[in-house]
Amino acid sequence: MTRSESGRDGGSPVAEGSSPSAAQAGRGGAPQTARQPVHGASFHEMWRDLRPIGRHADSGGYRRFAWTGADAECRAWFEEQARDRGLDYEVDRNGNQWAWLGDPAAGDAVVTGSHLDSVPDGGAFDGPLGVVSSFAALDELRARGARFDKPLAVVNFGDEEGARFGLACVGSRLAAGRLTVEQAGRLTDGDGVTLPQAMEAAGYDPEGIGPDPERLARIGAFVELHVEQGRALDLSGDAVGIASSIWPHGRWRFDFRGEANHAGTTRLVDRRDPMLSYAETVLAARREARLAGAVATFGKISVEPNGVNAIPSLVRGWLDSRAEDQTTLDTVVRAIEEAARDHAREHGIELDVVRESFTPVVEFEHALRDELVRILGRDTADLKVPVLGTGAGHDAGILSGTVPTAMLFVRNPTGVSHSPAEHAAEDDCLAGVTALADVLEGLARR
Amino acid sequence: MTRSESGRDGGSPVAEGSSPSAAQAGRGGAPQTARQPVHGASFHEMWRDLRPIGRHADSGGYRRFAWTGADAECRAWFEEQARDRGLDYEVDRNGNQWAWLGDPAAGDAVVTGSHLDSVPDGGAFDGPLGVVSSFAALDELRARGARFDKPLAVVNFGDEEGARFGLACVGSRLAAGRLTVEQAGRLTDGDGVTLPQAMEAAGYDPEGIGPDPERLARIGAFVELHVEQGRALDLSGDAVGIASSIWPHGRWRFDFRGEANHAGTTRLVDRRDPMLSYAETVLAARREARLAGAVATFGKISVEPNGVNAIPSLVRGWLDSRAEDQTTLDTVVRAIEEAARDHAREHGIELDVVRESFTPVVEFEHALRDELVRILGRDTADLKVPVLGTGAGHDAGILSGTVPTAMLFVRNPTGVSHSPAEHAAEDDCLAGVTALADVLEGLARR
Repeated sequence: MTRSESGRDGGSPVAEGSSPSAAQAGRGGAPQTARQPVHGASFHEMWRDLRPIGRHADSGGYRRFAWTGADAECRAWFEEQARDRGLDYEVDRNGNQWAWLGDPAAGDAVVTGSHLDSVPDGGAFDGPLGVVSSFAALDELRARGARFDKPLAVVNFGDEEGARFGLACVGSRLAAGRLTVEQAGRLTDGDGVTLPQAMEAAGYDPEGIGPDPERLARIGAFVELHVEQGRALDLSGDAVGIASSIWPHGRWRFDFRGEANHAGTTRLVDRRDPMLSYAETVLAARREARLAGAVATFGKISVEPNGVNAIPSLVRGWLDSRAEDQTTLDTVVRAIEEAARDHAREHGIELDVVRESFTPVVEFEHALRDELVRILGRDTADLKVPVLGTGAGHDAGILSGTVPTAMLFVRNPTGVSHSPAEHAAEDDCLAGVTALADVLEGLARR
Repeated sequence: MTRSESGRDGGSPVAEGSSPSAAQAGRGGAPQTARQPVHGASFHEMWRDLRPIGRHADSGGYRRFAWTGADAECRAWFEEQARDRGLDYEVDRNGNQWAWLGDPAAGDAVVTGSHLDSVPDGGAFDGPLGVVSSFAALDELRARGARFDKPLAVVNFGDEEGARFGLACVGSRLAAGRLTVEQAGRLTDGDGVTLPQAMEAAGYDPEGIGPDPERLARIGAFVELHVEQGRALDLSGDAVGIASSIWPHGRWRFDFRGEANHAGTTRLVDRRDPMLSYAETVLAARREARLAGAVATFGKISVEPNGVNAIPSLVRGWLDSRAEDQTTLDTVVRAIEEAARDHAREHGIELDVVRESFTPVVEFEHALRDELVRILGRDTADLKVPVLGTGAGHDAGILSGTVPTAMLFVRNPTGVSHSPAEHAAEDDCLAGVTALADVLEGLARR
């Protein structure tokens, strides 16, 4: 594979046969901290092994949904990586995978990692880049002969994307007590299979799921590396950035109920067609988000009876909205809901709006963030590793209430994410590995 | 069950224990032609037996899809009705069921009937009212001691609604050569099962499907009775009407292709969100239909990846549009497509519009229609049985190019159809049976 080919196909970011030097890894504004060559070969090998798992032939996107066969393959790969490196492998009560260097019981551990599952037809980088970079950073540190005063671990959190059961970050939520066992037991996939049934079918004991405070108490710092899901680094010209915060974020279900009727014989004036109110609301959401500098998206819809010649009885649309702060988000969602109610009234439609989930703003711990800035050789006054907010949720956000948490982002030249076109250049990925290795080394020594 | 209860629940139109007189049956503007009591008891019994088949407990609507278990139960019921009456029962090469009184080979047969399958969560009347009324009319004629010079038959056409394979009137289309065997072989349901596979699983030989000109050549007249799917009879105050024409009708698939991306992190200006163009097009369709006095509906949608936190890559919407004449329909659809293209361009969306099906205007044969008017005791100058157009497709429309065909409509007080709320009053149903019996008697003697 040539580099140009790897550009947009979700493939390997590392050209075959290449052995990037530290100079290459540091190109494009990446932190100039690499004291030894990055283990590009190890990164490349891992990436190549993961590449075919759960990839859909038609779309080119990944379908690695929690507790499916593709997920099991990813998990087997993780275990193999741990064992190949002589790390202590374990699966916690919620199905999250851990690979330890040093004794976890010593406490104040430095943990890194991300997730391996995907959204439907997702890209290759969202999640796997963090896990692969974690192992590669460990390889890099060993090659450097680094010594650690604290235990280190790589983690793969289960079911981060929520593609199958409709709730994101299930593995970290359960561990942090942010999702009760009862709530988890009610999660159901599109075929009516519950989360516990799915776990059991995958060979895990669902009886044990629940809060895991002792395990989390052993973690002194959690650092998640992730491909950026926007264009801030591309616009600033930097390969790697540090997260400041995760925007507050909610999901609302809009149920527009009208009257099913024959599409050929029902006069327009006799109709109560909920598709019209839905359409008005989609456009209102875009308008209100634009006015407020927020984002608002209707990306999921369910229609009954969904027949070509039937006026729908029900159009159910899900709104995803996020903004820099709580007040802005409240304003946007209130305006969208008001517009929806006005249009529903106009068409004789009943409207129910249900808030299905909500995550308040996450401010990553300032002390840890400042330490990352220091380790990466910059101070906040003359920042070359930019600190940026993000609209995406992450396991790091879930854990941030319980554990000191930080995130590193790797440049995504198009900003495209949750799509086969998601991409990061090889130099940027290796710059990310170097930065992560530096951070782990700095934190494990402090 | 009381009559008031039966009003909107898709239940029996005939009150239990009631035995409506001819006077009752003729109320509400129904043709005053009943010379003997209608066989309300036989109608009621048939209605009661059909009532539970394929009814969904939650919605109260019917899910009688072609070649499923519910469909098989309906078909077993039809066969039983035929055998109980001593009629000759047969299934043709395309799976349509026939019950004959007299020798079909004699030719110039008078055939009546409709279908027993349903749309998703459809009502009790669309289809079954025609089949039940056909058997009840035969009972009525026998009770009258009527004698016929021609063979008579009741037919149940398979897969009229097209709910499972997406194409309406498959049984009559195949028989009339309006659907080729190759096209039928490519029809696939939501689970990837082809029509031939489904027929085979239901115990029918799909090898035999195809045109059936000899069978159709034996039919001198086909009369389909159907619940009205609009409010014309309610507005005119008549129980029964005669069809003049079926509006030209088409289905178009609009594929809006954008770029899948993360709903939280992608700036609005960087998005190519096809849901926006879809929403604009839904509203344009309503506007253009209203301006032209036509109907246009987006009732079915398919979204990829259909995730709450994903900007869609593809929104596929199906437009159903009908108008009184071809020119009007062309104008409406062209205007909708132009609006869709403008909005797609504006949002960076690729648009493909595919005409999936089209049925030109059907003018029912004037000679047969005039004969129905004459039989029902009216002339066109002083019309009490109104002649009306309809936006709905029917097997009668498919056959009309091959066989002299007519339709009777029974009043639907709300006009609601393709919904559990679909309804016709018992008096009107029995007036329909009487009218159909009169028509069959008149045609079989001519």
